[in-house]
Amino acid sequence: MNISDIAKKIPASPIRELVPYADIAKKNGVHVYHLNIGDPDIQTPIEMIEVLKNWHKNPIGYAHSQGTAELLESMLWYYKKLGFAQLATENIQITFGGSEGLMWIFMSVCNPGDEIVVFEPFYTNYNSYAIMTHAKLVPILTTIENGFHLPSVEEIERKITPKTRAILICNPGNPNGVVYTKDEMDMLVSLAKKHNIFLISDEVYREFVYGDSLAISALSYTNEYRDGIIVCDSLSKRYSLCGIRIGTIVSFNKELMSACLRYAQARLSAGMVDQTVSASLTKVPDSYFAQVQVEYKNRRDTLIAGLKTIPGVVCPVPEGAFYIIVKLPVDDSFAFAKFMLSEFSDENETVMVAPAAGFYSTPGLGKDEIRIAYVLNTKALDRSAQILKKALVAYNAKNAKS
Amino acid sequence: MNISDIAKKIPASPIRELVPYADIAKKNGVHVYHLNIGDPDIQTPIEMIEVLKNWHKNPIGYAHSQGTAELLESMLWYYKKLGFAQLATENIQITFGGSEGLMWIFMSVCNPGDEIVVFEPFYTNYNSYAIMTHAKLVPILTTIENGFHLPSVEEIERKITPKTRAILICNPGNPNGVVYTKDEMDMLVSLAKKHNIFLISDEVYREFVYGDSLAISALSYTNEYRDGIIVCDSLSKRYSLCGIRIGTIVSFNKELMSACLRYAQARLSAGMVDQTVSASLTKVPDSYFAQVQVEYKNRRDTLIAGLKTIPGVVCPVPEGAFYIIVKLPVDDSFAFAKFMLSEFSDENETVMVAPAAGFYSTPGLGKDEIRIAYVLNTKALDRSAQILKKALVAYNAKNAKS
Repeated sequence: MNISDIAKKIPASPIRELVPYADIAKKNGVHVYHLNIGDPDIQTPIEMIEVLKNWHKNPIGYAHSQGTAELLESMLWYYKKLGFAQLATENIQITFGGSEGLMWIFMSVCNPGDEIVVFEPFYTNYNSYAIMTHAKLVPILTTIENGFHLPSVEEIERKITPKTRAILICNPGNPNGVVYTKDEMDMLVSLAKKHNIFLISDEVYREFVYGDSLAISALSYTNEYRDGIIVCDSLSKRYSLCGIRIGTIVSFNKELMSACLRYAQARLSAGMVDQTVSASLTKVPDSYFAQVQVEYKNRRDTLIAGLKTIPGVVCPVPEGAFYIIVKLPVDDSFAFAKFMLSEFSDENETVMVAPAAGFYSTPGLGKDEIRIAYVLNTKALDRSAQILKKALVAYNAKNAKS
Repeated sequence: MNISDIAKKIPASPIRELVPYADIAKKNGVHVYHLNIGDPDIQTPIEMIEVLKNWHKNPIGYAHSQGTAELLESMLWYYKKLGFAQLATENIQITFGGSEGLMWIFMSVCNPGDEIVVFEPFYTNYNSYAIMTHAKLVPILTTIENGFHLPSVEEIERKITPKTRAILICNPGNPNGVVYTKDEMDMLVSLAKKHNIFLISDEVYREFVYGDSLAISALSYTNEYRDGIIVCDSLSKRYSLCGIRIGTIVSFNKELMSACLRYAQARLSAGMVDQTVSASLTKVPDSYFAQVQVEYKNRRDTLIAGLKTIPGVVCPVPEGAFYIIVKLPVDDSFAFAKFMLSEFSDENETVMVAPAAGFYSTPGLGKDEIRIAYVLNTKALDRSAQILKKALVAYNAKNAKS
């Protein structure tokens, strides 16, 4: 039986493809520090857990396809607090996490073969959404040496062709921790406007910024480029709620929002329980975020301090999100990550990381890099850096022998 | 700004596009009997609600992309009870309801332009999944007079071309209530086998059968056509759990299941809460289904009795699921359905139905038909039939005048 080209081409997640090795390590009694995936250990706000404990709706029926009225109101409340009072219910579509939203956006802006410009390294699943929707990602390289900030406008413009339909950014950035400056955002918006293409801004890490300046949402530009701005959002990271699959698409483009509602109708509704839990975001106190931010800044600093003690390791200081791309003194970071799970342990502990090649679409790039998600507490991160250091020695010693 | 062809073409749900009119009716104080959508009023099993009330996991993190181990075990337990002990964990992929499953299946078996044979009228969202995945549905007409049973093997075979990749059935059938006989299932499997194409069987209404014979699952044929059978399933209807978005893809085709896992990784995981609730299906007593079945048989019989009192109405007795296609003495069932919501009420009550044209892909078909979901109690159904009767008189009187 033949399966389709998509079915053959869709990549395994570089974040998850090592999971079977981690499972075996765990079965053998080895403790695995999971730095491979952005699944935080921070507590979900108690106000949200209470929604489950106090559940009374029965039967648990479908919700409106756009989203429950209650959740749409809560999202408006949230965006208004950020300064985006211009939004109305019609500008928001509830999705199954950011993933479904990005799929629909790709599907809505690209005909098969149309192009989306994206800055490399990028969130690995963008590759999958592009394959599933027959869109073509056109990568523009950003470098670890430049802290993954944008290249010049000329360099970006060289990649814009008649087939380009959008520029896609992730800000704050997964996997690179970059937070774009106002100059960078201004440049992207005017570039998109000049070429009459969409600016798609994935802002699921909006609250995770560690510098003096806040991340600038693309929603700040809807006055000057009303139909061209599309924001993809998710509650997963913000409320440490990855298992509750709720995201949003936000745009003033009426045709786009109408299409999204029709996609939504085709899958009936997002989860009723997940939406009800999410709607309680209005009850989460500001102190929750303040604590979370302090915690992540400490984690970042702890991890960086640990990594700096390892010879041959190169890493920028991430400005936002909770990821860092780290260059290692190894030939093949996939082999090294697999080695840590299947051939190495230190005092019965090891570390799981994501090989970075999967975050590039240009073949050959990122082969000596890993992505670390600093989603564990500082003690675990400190210990993880020590393990990494010892594992590097063991791995390179083994390779030198063979 | 141009949006894509898909974004333009994706249809509004014929089940849901009249919702704004229903909302206005409700705002005007009119009670609306919702027979437009299969969103049952039957209670969700208390064993499942208890999972929410006793929630203790915090944080609510991602699940494995394939599904939680607990839910996969529960699904195996369920299929084993049905007699399908041959299944193993690797044959099951957890999805966001049946919808995501069908999208992935279409995407996995078809390259753009490839064809799937389907029996008309069919579940309207198949059209949307086909548009979103660039597959082409090739409809074969079944008729109300024949109770929507299959045409001859020759007639089906005439529609099979070198581009055909699958035959798609819904059994028991939405929107037509058909339950295929053993002869029909045998015929479909041997036809699929002969042409080396997939048989995709949407079995989300498996338990809703009202005759003497049970619906025959395509899983009964995995011994003779191991790689060619794909079953799509959902817990939504079975446990009156539409707002919990959990379904499965079941197949022995390793390449297909591998592709599904990779799609799943691209969207990380289905909902953790929804999966935990669903995993408790092992605790739901058999008496739950027995009661539900009796209740739906009563509903069906009440509705049919009511419809039979209306002059000019044609309807078969549905054998399964909880839908019925009804031929009405009207020119345009969409206009009639809209009329019932916006211009008609009887003692401040009215009925919402789904115009049937959206369940056909051949233009012009189903224009004098509606789909009724008999998901309300017998009293409400009896009253709904009365309202329908009066509304038909009022609608045709109005049309005669104009």
